[in-house]
Amino acid sequence: MIIATTPAELLAALKPLTGRIGLVMTMGALHEGHLSLVEAARQESDHVVVSIYVNPLQFGPGEDFDAYPRDLEGDVAKLEGVDVVFAPTDEAMYPRTPLVRIDPGPVSTILEGKTRPTHFAGVLQVVHKVFNLVRPHAAWFGQKDAQQLALIRTMVADLNMPLEIKSGPIKREPSGLAMSSRNSYLSDIEKEQALGLSQALAAGKRVADNGGSPMQTLAAARESLAHAPGVKMDYLELVDRDTFMELTGSGKGLLVTAAWVGTTRLIDNLEVLIG
Amino acid sequence: MIIATTPAELLAALKPLTGRIGLVMTMGALHEGHLSLVEAARQESDHVVVSIYVNPLQFGPGEDFDAYPRDLEGDVAKLEGVDVVFAPTDEAMYPRTPLVRIDPGPVSTILEGKTRPTHFAGVLQVVHKVFNLVRPHAAWFGQKDAQQLALIRTMVADLNMPLEIKSGPIKREPSGLAMSSRNSYLSDIEKEQALGLSQALAAGKRVADNGGSPMQTLAAARESLAHAPGVKMDYLELVDRDTFMELTGSGKGLLVTAAWVGTTRLIDNLEVLIG
Repeated sequence: MIIATTPAELLAALKPLTGRIGLVMTMGALHEGHLSLVEAARQESDHVVVSIYVNPLQFGPGEDFDAYPRDLEGDVAKLEGVDVVFAPTDEAMYPRTPLVRIDPGPVSTILEGKTRPTHFAGVLQVVHKVFNLVRPHAAWFGQKDAQQLALIRTMVADLNMPLEIKSGPIKREPSGLAMSSRNSYLSDIEKEQALGLSQALAAGKRVADNGGSPMQTLAAARESLAHAPGVKMDYLELVDRDTFMELTGSGKGLLVTAAWVGTTRLIDNLEVLIG
Repeated sequence: MIIATTPAELLAALKPLTGRIGLVMTMGALHEGHLSLVEAARQESDHVVVSIYVNPLQFGPGEDFDAYPRDLEGDVAKLEGVDVVFAPTDEAMYPRTPLVRIDPGPVSTILEGKTRPTHFAGVLQVVHKVFNLVRPHAAWFGQKDAQQLALIRTMVADLNMPLEIKSGPIKREPSGLAMSSRNSYLSDIEKEQALGLSQALAAGKRVADNGGSPMQTLAAARESLAHAPGVKMDYLELVDRDTFMELTGSGKGLLVTAAWVGTTRLIDNLEVLIG
């Protein structure tokens, strides 16, 4: 495995590789969710590149950029069968503050984007850069960051980027808690409390499965979250799975939520079928 | 030569090509300026793709999108030695109104961008899309659209796009008039009047060549343009050749101007060395 820390080192490492390159982009602190994406990439590619980069552009002021867990050595040890790890420095990624940027458009201003107004612009900037550096045939992203995944798909379509975007399902602890690098912030008690998110989504899904309307589905999920001890809702919405617009009729929906447990902000989502 | 009108046709035409692909992007109505870029691309590439597309996104309301000269057959006849012409329909380029866009940043709001506020966002969107579709080793653009050229270079750097941007010098009529597809709008009298632009830039350059300060250089050019019959200045500025910020000291400068001759808006620029 080659560990590249600059675009030049990355290009040198890619040069001898022939065949289809699969890409998994991460911020490190790897868990089973990431590793399942790496495994999927391995199965459908001749070579796999994993990027590990805590991208400052996607953190807002007062967010957890400094606190975000970093453990390159531990991460690399988990990446069996990966050809290249791209772990750039900030200076290598942003030799200057970028002047030309990706404008992520209307879907970036709702849900996650409402609470984190510059988040998706930062995400798309770095995703775009790494796509152009690695030039993979496909890139894998987790369904956990569902809105990010939708925006990346939109970017690829609207800019005719020459790769396929693939997704992997949310990995959960046996308790139901969605795996996240940010779970490391949680105390044992908070980990219990954090189950309120997945339980609320499940409560909504039960109503949808029994023929509930969008309004009934959403109400059940919100009711559950409102009564979850130690959890403070940021948002909980029922949106169309593709467009992320509010789902008001039948169709493929996504219950999406963000909530605070102590000082940690967590997100989760669950597919539901309405009607 | 293959003429492709959709991305799928383009990709099919590119598939058998091996080696380095050079790209020249145009809006058609080809003149010697375009053809000199095609010739440069031929000399440094194994295959050449020329795109011909009047991109609606880069025209503002009330601009000359409908009037812009279109002559695909005449253009194609001029493109000797070109492998593929990409002449897409609007529907093929924009199957929907794009949601994710290129934000062209601060340099897009001055000079041309001040008069044409959405122009460069539209330019960068289409340039980006065609780069991703053609995947050339290099693309050639004319120095006539100097601000566009600077913004494209900035985009390629800030987004790590995997190609080289090359430029070709302004081609001029024997009279000094910069070649432009929009010159076809001009009557014979207006063509005479339009010389006011290049003559004003030349007047500024004479002052710079004789050791004039930035202010003296700019004043001479503006004085000349103000007295040019039939010409109404939009702007005339002296900027740094790379950053497009106002040039106030010594350095590589660019005199840039836009002016109206009758109902036609023309642009021109000239390099000057200060100090």
